[in-house]
Amino acid sequence: MPNGCLIAFEGTEGAGKTSQLQLAAEVLRRDGYRVLVTAEPGGTALGLEIRRLLLHRSDSAPTPLAELFLYLADRAQHVAEVIKPALSAGDVVLADRFTGSTIAYQGFGRNLDVEMIARVENWARSGVAPRLTVLLDCPVRVGLERARGCDRFHTETEAFHERVRQGFLRLAAERGWCVVDATQPEDEVHRHVMDAIRASLAGL
Amino acid sequence: MPNGCLIAFEGTEGAGKTSQLQLAAEVLRRDGYRVLVTAEPGGTALGLEIRRLLLHRSDSAPTPLAELFLYLADRAQHVAEVIKPALSAGDVVLADRFTGSTIAYQGFGRNLDVEMIARVENWARSGVAPRLTVLLDCPVRVGLERARGCDRFHTETEAFHERVRQGFLRLAAERGWCVVDATQPEDEVHRHVMDAIRASLAGL
Repeated sequence: MPNGCLIAFEGTEGAGKTSQLQLAAEVLRRDGYRVLVTAEPGGTALGLEIRRLLLHRSDSAPTPLAELFLYLADRAQHVAEVIKPALSAGDVVLADRFTGSTIAYQGFGRNLDVEMIARVENWARSGVAPRLTVLLDCPVRVGLERARGCDRFHTETEAFHERVRQGFLRLAAERGWCVVDATQPEDEVHRHVMDAIRASLAGL
Repeated sequence: MPNGCLIAFEGTEGAGKTSQLQLAAEVLRRDGYRVLVTAEPGGTALGLEIRRLLLHRSDSAPTPLAELFLYLADRAQHVAEVIKPALSAGDVVLADRFTGSTIAYQGFGRNLDVEMIARVENWARSGVAPRLTVLLDCPVRVGLERARGCDRFHTETEAFHERVRQGFLRLAAERGWCVVDATQPEDEVHRHVMDAIRASLAGL
């Protein structure tokens, strides 16, 4: 049985997931935890190639369904090759995007059947689930201003990102995630994130 | 509503699908049908990249689940970009592998949940279904001798290919496919294939 602990960081573009995840990893390592930091899509060699198809193609962009299945292929490989072994070794695994992003982006964002995604996505990750999901929430415009990326998602409409944000908030309410206001100063956000993580790890 | 007709050719390695499909296409074109010949994986630009990940990787082979989802991504794109438009235009579409291969290879071959695959696969193709599926059946060894390929599937065990063959035969029985003995001379096989196709098209 896995005795480690998976913590997922979710949020729209520019919410600060990656920075907050790195800050949390540093603190946890100082506290003596063995921490694995990983991200989707692209947490494996195969996943990096899938990531390229998802984010950087322009001549033949995936349809919403093809996009979903590419994300699920990435997740299945990531869980089997990286996350499960780390949990078995007792690591704290911090994942930059996981289940929540699939439901928020492909379900609420792309308007695919959310119930069906939830069932298939659970299968893709062989039931491996986060002990804690931290949602960094901020208004879409604030995030897009911060992120200024140029992949296929950054160039989506504001309405798309708004559906994703509302999807995240709905999932957070339904599933008891920790929601942190990401418009606060970075050290404030960090303090809230660490409170949630410590409370979650204390129960181990 | 689509007014064309999709015909799928299925079978294990070396059963002669591709040659028989080409022969059938020639005859149908002579008969005046507009025919589109296509194949999976790789029937689209995105699909060609997915095909490479599925068949030619060796350093980080997909897990069975990742493999399934890559095939489903390929199918979703193929149906949306190629098959649906062709059916809407009234074409006879001859597909080298479709639904059956996913259930036989990833379900029976890789031992993934066949019922679950059938549900998800139906979603991936948005319900677009073949009017006729032709299964070219031959003993595994005969086919592998003929095919002599070198992709990830050709190097699978004989037991794997035997599970795939038995899976195909079971699906054929359950779903009323046309099964043709592919150990017969090529022109005999062709005659049986054309009889099935003409019977199917006559009902249009």
